[in-house]
Amino acid sequence: MYSFQNDYSEGMQPAILRALETINYHQNHSYGQDIHSDAARDYIQEALEDFSVDIHFIAGGTLTNLTFISHILKPFEAVISAETGHINTHETGAIEATGHKVCPVLTKNGKLTPDLIRPVLDMHENEHWVDPRLVYVSNPTEVGTVYTKEELEDLYAFCKRHDLYFYIDGARLAAALAAKEETHLTFPDLPKLCDAFYIGGTKVGAMFGEALVLVNENFKERFRFNMKQKGAILAKGWFLGVQFEELFKNNLYIEAGAHSIAMMKPIKEAFEKAGIPLLCEAPTNQIFPIFPNALADEINKKYLTTFQCKPDKDHTCLRFCTSWATNENAVKDFVEDFEEMCNRLL
Amino acid sequence: MYSFQNDYSEGMQPAILRALETINYHQNHSYGQDIHSDAARDYIQEALEDFSVDIHFIAGGTLTNLTFISHILKPFEAVISAETGHINTHETGAIEATGHKVCPVLTKNGKLTPDLIRPVLDMHENEHWVDPRLVYVSNPTEVGTVYTKEELEDLYAFCKRHDLYFYIDGARLAAALAAKEETHLTFPDLPKLCDAFYIGGTKVGAMFGEALVLVNENFKERFRFNMKQKGAILAKGWFLGVQFEELFKNNLYIEAGAHSIAMMKPIKEAFEKAGIPLLCEAPTNQIFPIFPNALADEINKKYLTTFQCKPDKDHTCLRFCTSWATNENAVKDFVEDFEEMCNRLL
Amino acid sequence: MYSFQNDYSEGMQPAILRALETINYHQNHSYGQDIHSDAARDYIQEALEDFSVDIHFIAGGTLTNLTFISHILKPFEAVISAETGHINTHETGAIEATGHKVCPVLTKNGKLTPDLIRPVLDMHENEHWVDPRLVYVSNPTEVGTVYTKEELEDLYAFCKRHDLYFYIDGARLAAALAAKEETHLTFPDLPKLCDAFYIGGTKVGAMFGEALVLVNENFKERFRFNMKQKGAILAKGWFLGVQFEELFKNNLYIEAGAHSIAMMKPIKEAFEKAGIPLLCEAPTNQIFPIFPNALADEINKKYLTTFQCKPDKDHTCLRFCTSWATNENAVKDFVEDFEEMCNRLL
Amino acid sequence: MYSFQNDYSEGMQPAILRALETINYHQNHSYGQDIHSDAARDYIQEALEDFSVDIHFIAGGTLTNLTFISHILKPFEAVISAETGHINTHETGAIEATGHKVCPVLTKNGKLTPDLIRPVLDMHENEHWVDPRLVYVSNPTEVGTVYTKEELEDLYAFCKRHDLYFYIDGARLAAALAAKEETHLTFPDLPKLCDAFYIGGTKVGAMFGEALVLVNENFKERFRFNMKQKGAILAKGWFLGVQFEELFKNNLYIEAGAHSIAMMKPIKEAFEKAGIPLLCEAPTNQIFPIFPNALADEINKKYLTTFQCKPDKDHTCLRFCTSWATNENAVKDFVEDFEEMCNRLL
Repeated sequence: MYSFQNDYSEGMQPAILRALETINYHQNHSYGQDIHSDAARDYIQEALEDFSVDIHFIAGGTLTNLTFISHILKPFEAVISAETGHINTHETGAIEATGHKVCPVLTKNGKLTPDLIRPVLDMHENEHWVDPRLVYVSNPTEVGTVYTKEELEDLYAFCKRHDLYFYIDGARLAAALAAKEETHLTFPDLPKLCDAFYIGGTKVGAMFGEALVLVNENFKERFRFNMKQKGAILAKGWFLGVQFEELFKNNLYIEAGAHSIAMMKPIKEAFEKAGIPLLCEAPTNQIFPIFPNALADEINKKYLTTFQCKPDKDHTCLRFCTSWATNENAVKDFVEDFEEMCNRLL
Repeated sequence: MYSFQNDYSEGMQPAILRALETINYHQNHSYGQDIHSDAARDYIQEALEDFSVDIHFIAGGTLTNLTFISHILKPFEAVISAETGHINTHETGAIEATGHKVCPVLTKNGKLTPDLIRPVLDMHENEHWVDPRLVYVSNPTEVGTVYTKEELEDLYAFCKRHDLYFYIDGARLAAALAAKEETHLTFPDLPKLCDAFYIGGTKVGAMFGEALVLVNENFKERFRFNMKQKGAILAKGWFLGVQFEELFKNNLYIEAGAHSIAMMKPIKEAFEKAGIPLLCEAPTNQIFPIFPNALADEINKKYLTTFQCKPDKDHTCLRFCTSWATNENAVKDFVEDFEEMCNRLL
Repeated sequence: MYSFQNDYSEGMQPAILRALETINYHQNHSYGQDIHSDAARDYIQEALEDFSVDIHFIAGGTLTNLTFISHILKPFEAVISAETGHINTHETGAIEATGHKVCPVLTKNGKLTPDLIRPVLDMHENEHWVDPRLVYVSNPTEVGTVYTKEELEDLYAFCKRHDLYFYIDGARLAAALAAKEETHLTFPDLPKLCDAFYIGGTKVGAMFGEALVLVNENFKERFRFNMKQKGAILAKGWFLGVQFEELFKNNLYIEAGAHSIAMMKPIKEAFEKAGIPLLCEAPTNQIFPIFPNALADEINKKYLTTFQCKPDKDHTCLRFCTSWATNENAVKDFVEDFEEMCNRLL
Repeated sequence: MYSFQNDYSEGMQPAILRALETINYHQNHSYGQDIHSDAARDYIQEALEDFSVDIHFIAGGTLTNLTFISHILKPFEAVISAETGHINTHETGAIEATGHKVCPVLTKNGKLTPDLIRPVLDMHENEHWVDPRLVYVSNPTEVGTVYTKEELEDLYAFCKRHDLYFYIDGARLAAALAAKEETHLTFPDLPKLCDAFYIGGTKVGAMFGEALVLVNENFKERFRFNMKQKGAILAKGWFLGVQFEELFKNNLYIEAGAHSIAMMKPIKEAFEKAGIPLLCEAPTNQIFPIFPNALADEINKKYLTTFQCKPDKDHTCLRFCTSWATNENAVKDFVEDFEEMCNRLL
């Protein structure tokens, strides 16, 4: 059964596998202070055109978010997130477990705006309330929408005016960059648009691993202490470094994002042709089509997808995801299957 | 300037002051294991008609809530609260600081219902989400509404069916009991309606102090360890005990609640007569009238109140609070003043 | 049975009781922002001859320590304490519960020195270890010894050289000041000798309450946020303020310390005369005599004391404590009783 | 420069690399619920001859320890560890960051005994102290010593009598099993000797990964919630599973431990022959020889080792470590070099 369930069901990019084979029998310095991690940091700084940022490699997204956020906030400071934000939903209270409230904001499409943040600041007026200090966004968001460069500029300017830090969860950042026509966002823009962000590796063909980029000088000092405390320093850290070395030395990172979007395109077109609406307009590698129940059931007999929600009793919203590894033929087969199902059922 | 700002602006009941004078020069056992604390526990058990509950005295409400909640939840368990609930707003993230997420629920009137809780449970489906384990309500709520006995029965039955604990924050419990005509709630009902609750002393004429009542057997073991760790055991604990001794030995507790509501009645009637709407229907000692701005300004020139919100640009919602100490003449004066203001401004 | 068990078994100073009676029926601003708290702050600043310090009143010592320490440390920073330090023993892991390690140092007499701290710093060499950032001492210590002004100067100078903060737990500070002949310590010395300290009220005749004095500018900002989060802001905060107003407006605070030491003197002399050794030389209001078992048993039949330890199987070490309230006649009676017991048993 | 610095400087076992190549292009279920993780769990259960245990794969040792310990302890419960225990030294306060005190015990050789634990229990007598609930040992210990099967039996029996949990950190467990002549310990003994333990993969030729084995039924429920919260569930979890599949399907795990000890043997003999004492008797793959300074300096010119301590000003204690990957010729070369250095310098 072919899976469109998510973008972390497949292994690693061939280039990464080859690199593992090449370096496996060398002795290395441990704890991320090795030549591969250093090389990866160099490649990423070059791609960002910014040699002042600090870069740390961490095994997964939740661990990255909790290590970063607990590092920069004082005990009574809180983080503002869309209600649908990953830290507010799918991280089992990881941020609260480090002592900090997540202030959730209702949104229409998973995206924060200055206008949505302002009332939160107004409400938190004194020491009886937590002190919101960080704005967290995911780009792309958890519902597949994207922030444009202009929207990020507005958010960051707003944050600076209100003494807030701004952090971008880039679990699927490659897709936001690949959707450049919509986002106008390039890699070198990023350090100019936020205080910190992370570059997701897992969902772009790493075995595991995210690269946290610290832009704001205040965050840099003794960050490795907090990493170690949270279990976020790997003994054989070069296995993280080497993956990012491969992702960034030949532009593989951006290409992987582009491939995943290219693979989504025919699927999205097929849904559009069949008059299937999406939960939100989503130009990236994950979309959330709303099917009549019978059609959803039929699809799930042949393909793995993720259940998202029931917008009403007659319809079912599923998540479709493509990845760096999605096979062109599998997409073609799906589109044909889908058209046949529509003919039969609609 | 007379204050209707809140119910914690005045000192202690005369009976409590006299008790302090009487016992001040005796030697006592420390840390809450003294004869006054024991006597207070006895009086409260008698009032509850339940001799199996454990009772602990703690200096304030936030300290009570955080000590209790951190005691009963596992790290990944969360508490469900109305969005307006005290733990979700005015405790500076105290619950999150002990590691637990508060899952906020939007309500119309500050009150949770099974129908509002059910979708929260449905959404938290697996280990990627926190596990909601406790339902927190305040009675009366933070917007002055009350839960009836029947509503609490429904909530507790729902909680038991879904393996949830049920906890009542009784910062102003005396008012809910005094509003018996609306709530049908008596003191002995309480241990039958929840797993734990606290009896607020501060807002009923104690200097300070809340009595936490643990009903559920699971909560009782080694609770004092958690109290000590959170700084919630007072060295001279008998000063907490003696206050509750006084509040409960002659029914002072309930009378104080009744007085505060009786003092609110003429104020509420004056607002009604003048056509001033309330934010919610609130039968207790705090109400939230919505005034034309000019009238609000005029009131605030002569009386202390608390600003609540701006429902629209022309209106201002203020909190009016009475207490065990509110003076009958002060109320009369206010009503006269208010009528004069209305005549002048409306 | 007369109690020499501790210095928190008796109520409040008469002057404090009278003040409560005087102010009880006034309306006040809540949460510690009232005229009595302000007056108390003024009196303390005058006594300290330092008008730049921030002063916060908190209900108890553990709550003060955990609120202060969690405010100033980053997640991976730790506090160095004598192994016998209150935060390392009798606070049920309160500091660890806020996320910070206490690094215990073995001492001979409960006192830290630069020479004892240096190896701790040497050992904590990189990000695999916590980063010790605060030195915590109690003066007097938990075993009744005291730091002299010169010793505190040395410690603070050492701390500054090593980028460590220095904090003095003054639960019994009045006794250290009253033992001026040994300590050479005066009240105005304190803000020059540390980054923060607290002035214990509970053990000097307050009902409850400690005054935390923040000297270091870094600690001052938004401290009330952390207080509120930890449950350390009392709604009727003026009941804390008024107690310190009384303690400091007529020098009652220092006198109380002096009285407690004066009451200990005859007891200590009686022990000396009988050849009873002390655990440590202790010039304050708590001493730890080591009795032959039979004598300890005999004492405990007639007086309450606290068991400290068994130095060997034939001896028992007890804690004797006097307080602001210890009665001169009770002391005389004890000394007579003790001499009689010695005659009979030794 | 050949490194004897540690046992995590080399990559993965060839068999693991081959397995990665074989499975890389398959689609898998995510979050550790895949066929490779299941197969690895089966192999480990077979090796343990116990099919009732729960097994979870986590990326590193600190993350394993903090996730496990925070899962089983209540807020005021503490863990007893040798002062030299990894959680008390080299994990940057990871356990305290989850709220729990580590009670350190001074030992002669890094090993706990019932006689060393008993005084800790005696001291922690009531709610003013943390409640020690878990005993943590590393086998082998951080100084290279090992617990025998009999010692573990005694400790576990002691723990059960005192209502303590018993947990073995097996970062280098393979070495303790390979040193069977000294330890008499076999793999199937382990679930009978403790409530939980982990099987270290990183130091036996995995890229990364530890297998936590939960024996005690109380620990099993909803453990994955705590894993997710602490960032300890990997999206592509099969990359953990497949490594343990390889380590356990052909006994590779035990063989790796045996190889590391076999490689240490000639080194240890050379030191013995030269009269170089060890810090402790250590039958495993890490030893701590104490060299005259000049000899230590000479060694460090040609080989990487880890500085351990300065027992006195004339001597230097270094850590020597071998691993699954240590090359037989490198060992021979070192022994020759060492003998030459001794001839020259001693």
